Amino acid sequence: MKISARNVFKGTISNIVSGSVNSEIDITLGGNDKIVAIVTNGSVTALGLKTGKEVTALIKASSILVMTDSTGFALSARNVLAGKVSKVSNGQVSSEIGISLSSGITVFATITHDAVKELDIKEGVSASAVFKASSVILGVAQ
Amino acid sequence: MKISARNVFKGTISNIVSGSVNSEIDITLGGNDKIVAIVTNGSVTALGLKTGKEVTALIKASSILVMTDSTGFALSARNVLAGKVSKVSNGQVSSEIGISLSSGITVFATITHDAVKELDIKEGVSASAVFKASSVILGVAQ
Amino acid sequence: MKISARNVFKGTISNIVSGSVNSEIDITLGGNDKIVAIVTNGSVTALGLKTGKEVTALIKASSILVMTDSTGFALSARNVLAGKVSKVSNGQVSSEIGISLSSGITVFATITHDAVKELDIKEGVSASAVFKASSVILGVAQ
Repeated sequence: MKISARNVFKGTISNIVSGSVNSEIDITLGGNDKIVAIVTNGSVTALGLKTGKEVTALIKASSILVMTDSTGFALSARNVLAGKVSKVSNGQVSSEIGISLSSGITVFATITHDAVKELDIKEGVSASAVFKASSVILGVAQ
Repeated sequence: MKISARNVFKGTISNIVSGSVNSEIDITLGGNDKIVAIVTNGSVTALGLKTGKEVTALIKASSILVMTDSTGFALSARNVLAGKVSKVSNGQVSSEIGISLSSGITVFATITHDAVKELDIKEGVSASAVFKASSVILGVAQ
Repeated sequence: MKISARNVFKGTISNIVSGSVNSEIDITLGGNDKIVAIVTNGSVTALGLKTGKEVTALIKASSILVMTDSTGFALSARNVLAGKVSKVSNGQVSSEIGISLSSGITVFATITHDAVKELDIKEGVSASAVFKASSVILGVAQ
Protein backbone atom coordinates (compact mmCIF):
# COMPACT_ATOMS: atom_id res chain seq x y z
CA MET A 1 0.00 0.00 0.00
CA LYS A 2 1.25 3.46 -0.92
CA ILE A 3 -0.71 6.28 0.67
CA SER A 4 -0.03 9.90 1.56
CA ALA A 5 -0.69 9.51 5.31
CA ARG A 6 2.53 10.53 7.11
CA ASN A 7 1.66 8.21 9.95
CA VAL A 8 1.42 4.52 9.08
CA PHE A 9 1.82 2.32 12.14
CA LYS A 10 1.69 -1.47 12.27
CA GLY A 11 0.22 -3.02 15.37
CA THR A 12 -1.98 -5.71 16.84
CA ILE A 13 -5.57 -5.33 18.02
CA SER A 14 -5.58 -5.73 21.80
CA ASN A 15 -9.24 -4.98 22.49
CA ILE A 16 -12.54 -4.22 20.75
CA VAL A 17 -15.58 -2.59 22.36
CA SER A 18 -18.63 -2.50 20.10
CA GLY A 19 -21.43 0.06 20.27
CA SER A 20 -24.57 0.06 18.16
CA VAL A 21 -22.95 1.81 15.19
CA ASN A 22 -19.24 2.18 15.92
CA SER A 23 -16.56 0.10 17.58
CA GLU A 24 -13.60 1.24 19.59
CA ILE A 25 -10.43 -0.61 18.63
CA ASP A 26 -7.30 -0.66 20.83
CA ILE A 27 -4.11 -1.24 18.86
CA THR A 28 -0.80 -2.03 20.51
CA LEU A 29 2.19 -0.90 18.47
CA GLY A 30 5.76 -2.09 18.94
CA GLY A 31 7.38 -0.63 22.06
CA ASN A 32 4.14 -0.50 24.07
CA ASP A 33 2.68 2.57 22.38
CA LYS A 34 -1.08 2.22 22.09
CA ILE A 35 -3.55 3.81 19.67
CA VAL A 36 -7.33 3.92 19.96
CA ALA A 37 -9.41 3.99 16.76
CA ILE A 38 -13.15 4.34 16.20
CA VAL A 39 -14.52 2.73 13.05
CA THR A 40 -17.99 1.68 11.98
CA ASN A 41 -19.23 -1.81 12.83
CA GLY A 42 -19.54 -2.30 9.07
CA SER A 43 -15.79 -1.89 8.75
CA VAL A 44 -15.18 -4.28 11.65
CA THR A 45 -17.06 -6.96 9.72
CA ALA A 46 -15.70 -6.08 6.27
CA LEU A 47 -12.08 -6.09 7.47
CA GLY A 48 -12.51 -9.08 9.82
CA LEU A 49 -11.20 -7.07 12.79
CA LYS A 50 -10.72 -9.08 15.98
CA THR A 51 -8.39 -9.24 18.96
CA GLY A 52 -4.92 -10.44 17.94
CA LYS A 53 -5.26 -9.40 14.30
CA GLU A 54 -2.47 -7.36 12.75
CA VAL A 55 -3.61 -3.99 11.44
CA THR A 56 -2.13 -0.80 10.10
CA ALA A 57 -3.25 2.49 11.65
CA LEU A 58 -3.18 5.50 9.32
CA ILE A 59 -3.39 9.05 10.67
CA LYS A 60 -3.12 12.13 8.47
CA ALA A 61 -0.58 14.65 9.78
CA SER A 62 -3.22 17.39 9.62
CA SER A 63 -5.37 15.50 12.17
CA ILE A 64 -2.68 15.73 14.85
CA LEU A 65 -2.19 18.47 17.45
CA VAL A 66 1.10 19.14 19.20
CA MET A 67 0.92 19.68 22.97
CA THR A 68 3.99 20.90 24.87
CA ASP A 69 2.44 21.19 28.32
CA SER A 70 -0.62 19.43 29.72
CA THR A 71 -0.10 20.36 33.38
CA GLY A 72 -3.42 20.33 35.20
CA PHE A 73 -5.44 19.47 32.10
CA ALA A 74 -7.24 16.40 30.78
CA LEU A 75 -8.48 16.08 27.19
CA SER A 76 -11.29 14.18 25.51
CA ALA A 77 -8.92 13.10 22.72
CA ARG A 78 -8.15 9.43 23.25
CA ASN A 79 -4.66 9.46 21.79
CA VAL A 80 -1.85 11.35 23.53
CA LEU A 81 1.59 10.04 22.57
CA ALA A 82 4.49 11.59 24.48
CA GLY A 83 7.94 12.08 22.96
CA LYS A 84 10.47 14.65 21.86
CA VAL A 85 10.40 16.94 18.85
CA SER A 86 12.85 15.54 16.30
CA LYS A 87 11.95 17.61 13.21
CA VAL A 88 10.61 21.08 12.50
CA SER A 89 10.02 22.06 8.89
CA ASN A 90 8.50 25.52 8.46
CA GLY A 91 6.51 26.84 5.51
CA GLN A 92 4.86 30.26 5.31
CA VAL A 93 1.57 29.10 6.81
CA SER A 94 2.05 25.44 7.73
CA SER A 95 4.80 23.58 9.56
CA GLU A 96 5.52 19.86 9.75
CA ILE A 97 6.60 18.59 13.16
CA GLY A 98 8.11 15.18 13.90
CA ILE A 99 7.72 13.81 17.44
CA SER A 100 9.87 10.78 18.24
CA LEU A 101 8.44 8.42 20.85
CA SER A 102 10.67 6.45 23.22
CA SER A 103 9.76 3.32 21.26
CA GLY A 104 11.49 4.75 18.19
CA ILE A 105 8.31 5.58 16.30
CA THR A 106 8.07 9.11 14.87
CA VAL A 107 4.67 10.80 14.62
CA PHE A 108 4.27 13.64 12.11
CA ALA A 109 1.88 16.56 12.61
CA THR A 110 1.14 19.55 10.41
CA ILE A 111 0.23 22.61 12.42
CA THR A 112 0.30 26.33 11.70
CA HIS A 113 3.62 28.15 11.65
CA ASP A 114 2.08 30.61 14.13
CA ALA A 115 1.59 27.77 16.62
CA VAL A 116 5.25 26.76 16.24
CA LYS A 117 6.31 30.30 17.12
CA GLU A 118 3.88 30.73 20.01
CA LEU A 119 4.71 27.40 21.63
CA ASP A 120 8.43 27.80 20.78
CA ILE A 121 8.51 24.31 19.28
CA LYS A 122 12.03 23.23 18.34
CA GLU A 123 14.08 20.06 18.15
CA GLY A 124 14.68 18.38 21.50
CA VAL A 125 11.65 19.85 23.26
CA SER A 126 9.25 17.44 25.01
CA ALA A 127 5.89 17.27 23.22
CA SER A 128 2.89 15.01 22.77
CA ALA A 129 1.02 14.12 19.59
CA VAL A 130 -2.72 14.46 20.30
CA PHE A 131 -5.43 13.05 18.03
CA LYS A 132 -8.99 11.80 18.21
CA ALA A 133 -9.85 8.11 17.86
CA SER A 134 -12.10 9.10 14.96
CA SER A 135 -9.09 10.40 13.00
CA VAL A 136 -7.61 6.92 12.65
CA ILE A 137 -8.16 4.84 9.49
CA LEU A 138 -7.43 1.13 9.79
CA GLY A 139 -6.01 -1.06 7.05
CA VAL A 140 -5.57 -4.83 6.87
CA ALA A 141 -3.59 -7.02 4.49
CA GLN A 142 -5.80 -9.26 2.43
CA MET B 1 -1.91 23.71 28.80
CA LYS B 2 0.11 24.59 25.74
CA ILE B 3 -1.21 23.07 22.53
CA SER B 4 -0.97 23.87 18.83
CA ALA B 5 -4.73 24.24 18.28
CA ARG B 6 -5.32 27.79 16.99
CA ASN B 7 -8.76 27.77 18.53
CA VAL B 8 -8.91 27.39 22.30
CA PHE B 9 -12.20 28.65 23.72
CA LYS B 10 -13.28 28.63 27.36
CA GLY B 11 -16.94 28.07 28.05
CA THR B 12 -19.54 26.41 30.23
CA ILE B 13 -21.50 23.27 29.42
CA SER B 14 -25.13 24.29 28.90
CA ASN B 15 -26.57 20.92 27.84
CA ILE B 16 -25.62 17.26 27.38
CA VAL B 17 -27.53 14.73 25.27
CA SER B 18 -26.22 11.18 25.61
CA GLY B 19 -26.50 8.47 22.97
CA SER B 20 -25.36 4.88 23.35
CA VAL B 21 -21.74 5.61 22.42
CA ASN B 22 -21.35 9.37 22.04
CA SER B 23 -22.70 12.43 23.78
CA GLU B 24 -23.50 15.81 22.30
CA ILE B 25 -22.21 18.63 24.46
CA ASP B 26 -23.44 22.24 24.13
CA ILE B 27 -20.91 24.80 25.31
CA THR B 28 -21.77 28.46 25.83
CA LEU B 29 -18.80 30.76 25.34
CA GLY B 30 -18.58 34.35 26.55
CA GLY B 31 -20.69 36.71 24.45
CA ASN B 32 -23.43 34.13 23.68
CA ASP B 33 -21.48 32.19 21.07
CA LYS B 34 -22.29 28.50 21.30
CA ILE B 35 -20.29 25.45 20.24
CA VAL B 36 -21.53 21.87 19.89
CA ALA B 37 -19.09 19.01 20.50
CA ILE B 38 -19.46 15.26 20.15
CA VAL B 39 -17.28 13.14 22.41
CA THR B 40 -17.47 9.53 23.53
CA ASN B 41 -19.42 8.65 26.65
CA GLY B 42 -16.12 7.34 28.01
CA SER B 43 -14.72 10.87 27.86
CA VAL B 44 -17.85 12.28 29.50
CA THR B 45 -17.20 10.02 32.48
CA ALA B 46 -13.43 10.39 32.52
CA LEU B 47 -13.57 14.18 32.41
CA GLY B 48 -16.60 14.46 34.69
CA LEU B 49 -18.53 16.48 32.11
CA LYS B 50 -21.88 17.84 33.32
CA THR B 51 -24.07 20.89 32.86
CA GLY B 52 -22.49 23.97 34.41
CA LYS B 53 -18.94 22.64 34.27
CA GLU B 54 -16.25 24.88 32.79
CA VAL B 55 -14.51 23.35 29.79
CA THR B 56 -12.09 24.36 27.07
CA ALA B 57 -13.04 23.62 23.47
CA LEU B 58 -10.11 22.99 21.11
CA ILE B 59 -10.56 23.06 17.33
CA LYS B 60 -7.69 22.68 14.89
CA ALA B 61 -7.65 25.43 12.25
CA SER B 62 -7.52 22.77 9.51
CA SER B 63 -10.93 21.42 10.62
CA ILE B 64 -12.66 24.71 9.88
CA LEU B 65 -14.30 25.81 6.62
CA VAL B 66 -14.90 29.43 5.69
CA MET B 67 -18.34 30.27 4.26
CA THR B 68 -18.99 33.70 2.76
CA ASP B 69 -22.56 33.11 1.57
CA SER B 70 -25.11 30.58 2.82
CA THR B 71 -28.16 32.03 1.07
CA GLY B 72 -30.72 29.30 0.53
CA PHE B 73 -28.57 26.56 2.00
CA ALA B 74 -28.57 24.54 5.21
CA LEU B 75 -25.61 22.41 6.32
CA SER B 76 -25.26 19.29 8.46
CA ALA B 77 -22.28 20.86 10.27
CA ARG B 78 -23.48 21.83 13.74
CA ASN B 79 -21.18 24.80 14.21
CA VAL B 80 -21.60 27.93 12.07
CA LEU B 81 -20.13 31.02 13.72
CA ALA B 82 -20.76 34.29 11.89
CA GLY B 83 -18.31 37.21 11.92
CA LYS B 84 -15.98 39.29 9.81
CA VAL B 85 -12.64 38.36 8.29
CA SER B 86 -9.95 40.07 10.37
CA LYS B 87 -6.82 38.33 9.09
CA VAL B 88 -5.67 36.76 5.81
CA SER B 89 -2.21 35.22 5.71
CA ASN B 90 -1.38 33.54 2.40
CA GLY B 91 1.17 30.81 1.73
CA GLN B 92 1.75 29.09 -1.61
CA VAL B 93 -0.80 26.33 -0.99
CA SER B 94 -2.41 27.14 2.38
CA SER B 95 -3.85 30.32 3.86
CA GLU B 96 -4.73 31.16 7.44
CA ILE B 97 -7.93 33.13 7.92
CA GLY B 98 -9.05 34.86 11.11
CA ILE B 99 -12.78 35.46 11.57
CA SER B 100 -13.70 37.82 14.42
CA LEU B 101 -17.08 37.21 16.00
CA SER B 102 -19.19 40.02 17.47
CA SER B 103 -18.34 38.69 20.93
CA GLY B 104 -14.68 39.52 20.34
CA ILE B 105 -13.57 35.92 19.85
CA THR B 106 -11.44 35.23 16.76
CA VAL B 107 -11.70 31.85 15.03
CA PHE B 108 -8.79 30.72 12.87
CA ALA B 109 -9.16 28.48 9.82
CA THR B 110 -6.58 27.12 7.41
CA ILE B 111 -7.97 26.71 3.92
CA THR B 112 -6.37 26.50 0.50
CA HIS B 113 -5.00 29.64 -1.12
CA ASP B 114 -7.14 28.73 -4.16
CA ALA B 115 -10.28 29.02 -2.04
CA VAL B 116 -9.20 32.46 -0.81
CA LYS B 117 -8.87 33.61 -4.41
CA GLU B 118 -12.12 32.04 -5.62
CA LEU B 119 -14.21 33.37 -2.75
CA ASP B 120 -12.33 36.70 -2.78
CA ILE B 121 -11.75 36.47 0.96
CA LYS B 122 -10.21 39.63 2.40
CA GLU B 123 -10.25 41.64 5.60
CA GLY B 124 -13.62 43.15 6.45
CA VAL B 125 -15.72 40.67 4.49
CA SER B 126 -18.58 38.89 6.31
CA ALA B 127 -17.84 35.17 6.75
CA SER B 128 -18.76 32.21 8.91
CA ALA B 129 -16.50 29.57 10.45
CA VAL B 130 -18.06 26.15 9.79
CA PHE B 131 -16.99 22.97 11.60
CA LYS B 132 -18.41 19.63 12.61
CA ALA B 133 -19.23 18.78 16.23
CA SER B 134 -16.87 15.82 15.88
CA SER B 135 -13.93 18.17 15.21
CA VAL B 136 -14.05 19.58 18.72
CA ILE B 137 -11.76 18.26 21.48
CA LEU B 138 -12.73 19.13 25.04
CA GLY B 139 -10.34 19.81 27.90
CA VAL B 140 -10.96 20.28 31.60
CA ALA B 141 -8.75 21.60 34.37
CA GLN B 142 -7.95 18.96 36.96
CA MET C 1 -23.55 28.97 -1.18
CA LYS C 2 -19.93 30.11 -1.19
CA ILE C 3 -17.68 28.01 1.00
CA SER C 4 -13.96 27.23 1.12
CA ALA C 5 -14.35 23.44 0.73
CA ARG C 6 -12.46 22.45 -2.42
CA ASN C 7 -14.79 19.55 -2.92
CA VAL C 8 -18.45 20.41 -3.48
CA PHE C 9 -20.34 17.59 -5.18
CA LYS C 10 -24.01 17.53 -6.10
CA GLY C 11 -25.77 14.20 -5.87
CA THR C 12 -28.88 12.31 -4.87
CA ILE C 13 -29.40 10.28 -1.71
CA SER C 14 -29.62 6.62 -2.72
CA ASN C 15 -29.83 5.05 0.73
CA ILE C 16 -30.04 5.91 4.44
CA VAL C 17 -29.19 3.58 7.32
CA SER C 18 -30.02 5.02 10.73
CA GLY C 19 -28.27 4.10 13.98
CA SER C 20 -29.21 5.39 17.42
CA VAL C 21 -27.22 8.62 17.08
CA ASN C 22 -25.85 8.80 13.55
CA SER C 23 -27.08 7.90 10.10
CA GLU C 24 -25.11 6.65 7.14
CA ILE C 25 -26.11 8.40 3.93
CA ASP C 26 -25.23 7.03 0.48
CA ILE C 27 -25.05 9.72 -2.19
CA THR C 28 -24.87 8.95 -5.90
CA LEU C 29 -23.08 11.61 -7.91
CA GLY C 30 -23.24 12.08 -11.65
CA GLY C 31 -21.28 9.41 -13.53
CA ASN C 32 -21.94 6.67 -10.96
CA ASP C 33 -19.44 7.87 -8.37
CA LYS C 34 -20.77 7.24 -4.87
CA ILE C 35 -19.99 8.95 -1.58
CA VAL C 36 -20.85 7.75 1.92
CA ALA C 37 -21.47 10.33 4.65
CA ILE C 38 -22.15 9.96 8.37
CA VAL C 39 -24.19 12.72 9.98
CA THR C 40 -26.18 12.94 13.21
CA ASN C 41 -29.81 11.91 13.22
CA GLY C 42 -30.53 15.48 14.29
CA SER C 43 -29.16 16.70 10.98
CA VAL C 44 -31.18 14.09 9.07
CA THR C 45 -34.34 15.57 10.58
CA ALA C 46 -33.28 19.22 10.37
CA LEU C 47 -32.30 18.94 6.70
CA GLY C 48 -35.17 16.62 5.76
CA LEU C 49 -32.78 14.01 4.34
CA LYS C 50 -34.47 11.09 2.59
CA THR C 51 -33.89 8.78 -0.34
CA GLY C 52 -34.15 10.63 -3.63
CA LYS C 53 -33.42 14.05 -2.17
CA GLU C 54 -30.77 16.20 -3.88
CA VAL C 55 -27.88 17.10 -1.59
CA THR C 56 -24.47 18.69 -1.83
CA ALA C 57 -21.54 16.83 -0.28
CA LEU C 58 -18.71 19.04 1.02
CA ILE C 59 -15.29 17.60 1.83
CA LYS C 60 -12.36 19.72 2.92
CA ALA C 61 -9.21 19.00 0.91
CA SER C 62 -7.26 18.46 4.13
CA SER C 63 -9.52 15.50 5.04
CA ILE C 64 -8.49 13.55 1.94
CA LEU C 65 -5.62 11.08 1.60
CA VAL C 66 -4.03 10.17 -1.72
CA MET C 67 -3.39 6.46 -2.32
CA THR C 68 -1.34 5.35 -5.32
CA ASP C 69 -1.31 1.61 -4.62
CA SER C 70 -3.76 -0.46 -2.57
CA THR C 71 -2.57 -3.89 -3.67
CA GLY C 72 -3.39 -6.47 -1.02
CA PHE C 73 -4.89 -3.93 1.37
CA ALA C 74 -8.36 -3.03 2.57
CA LEU C 75 -9.14 0.17 4.47
CA SER C 76 -11.80 1.16 7.01
CA ALA C 77 -12.33 4.47 5.18
CA ARG C 78 -15.65 4.24 3.35
CA ASN C 79 -14.76 6.50 0.45
CA VAL C 80 -12.12 5.44 -2.08
CA LEU C 81 -12.52 7.24 -5.42
CA ALA C 82 -10.18 6.07 -8.16
CA GLY C 83 -8.85 8.34 -10.90
CA LYS C 84 -5.76 9.97 -12.31
CA VAL C 85 -3.69 12.82 -10.93
CA SER C 86 -4.51 15.93 -12.95
CA LYS C 87 -2.89 18.64 -10.84
CA VAL C 88 0.07 18.92 -8.47
CA SER C 89 0.72 22.26 -6.80
CA ASN C 90 3.63 22.21 -4.35
CA GLY C 91 4.27 24.54 -1.42
CA GLN C 92 7.12 24.23 1.06
CA VAL C 93 5.18 22.03 3.49
CA SER C 94 1.83 21.36 1.83
CA SER C 95 0.83 20.29 -1.68
CA GLU C 96 -2.56 20.39 -3.38
CA ILE C 97 -3.37 17.38 -5.55
CA GLY C 98 -6.21 17.11 -8.03
CA ILE C 99 -7.49 13.62 -8.89
CA SER C 100 -9.82 13.44 -11.90
CA LEU C 101 -12.35 10.61 -11.83
CA SER C 102 -13.56 8.92 -15.01
CA SER C 103 -16.91 10.67 -14.52
CA GLY C 104 -15.21 14.02 -15.02
CA ILE C 105 -15.32 15.06 -11.35
CA THR C 106 -12.04 16.31 -9.86
CA VAL C 107 -11.31 15.67 -6.19
CA PHE C 108 -8.80 17.94 -4.44
CA ALA C 109 -6.59 16.81 -1.55
CA THR C 110 -4.00 18.71 0.45
CA ILE C 111 -1.21 16.44 1.63
CA THR C 112 2.37 17.06 2.73
CA HIS C 113 5.00 17.88 0.13
CA ASP C 114 7.07 15.04 1.65
CA ALA C 115 4.30 12.59 0.74
CA VAL C 116 4.28 13.85 -2.85
CA LYS C 117 8.01 13.17 -3.10
CA GLU C 118 7.90 9.77 -1.41
CA LEU C 119 4.98 8.48 -3.48
CA ASP C 120 6.30 10.21 -6.62
CA ILE C 121 2.91 11.77 -7.28
CA LYS C 122 2.76 13.56 -10.62
CA GLU C 123 0.25 14.32 -13.35
CA GLY C 124 -1.06 11.26 -15.16
CA VAL C 125 -0.39 8.78 -12.36
CA SER C 126 -3.28 6.55 -11.19
CA ALA C 127 -4.39 7.49 -7.67
CA SER C 128 -7.37 7.25 -5.35
CA ALA C 129 -8.86 9.89 -3.07
CA VAL C 130 -9.49 8.29 0.33
CA PHE C 131 -11.66 9.87 3.03
CA LYS C 132 -13.80 8.87 5.97
CA ALA C 133 -17.58 9.08 5.89
CA SER C 134 -17.35 11.32 8.95
CA SER C 135 -15.38 13.92 6.96
CA VAL C 136 -18.36 14.71 4.74
CA ILE C 137 -20.65 17.68 5.45
CA LEU C 138 -24.02 17.66 3.72
CA GLY C 139 -25.88 20.71 2.48
CA VAL C 140 -29.39 21.09 1.10
CA ALA C 141 -31.08 23.93 -0.75
CA GLN C 142 -33.90 25.47 1.22
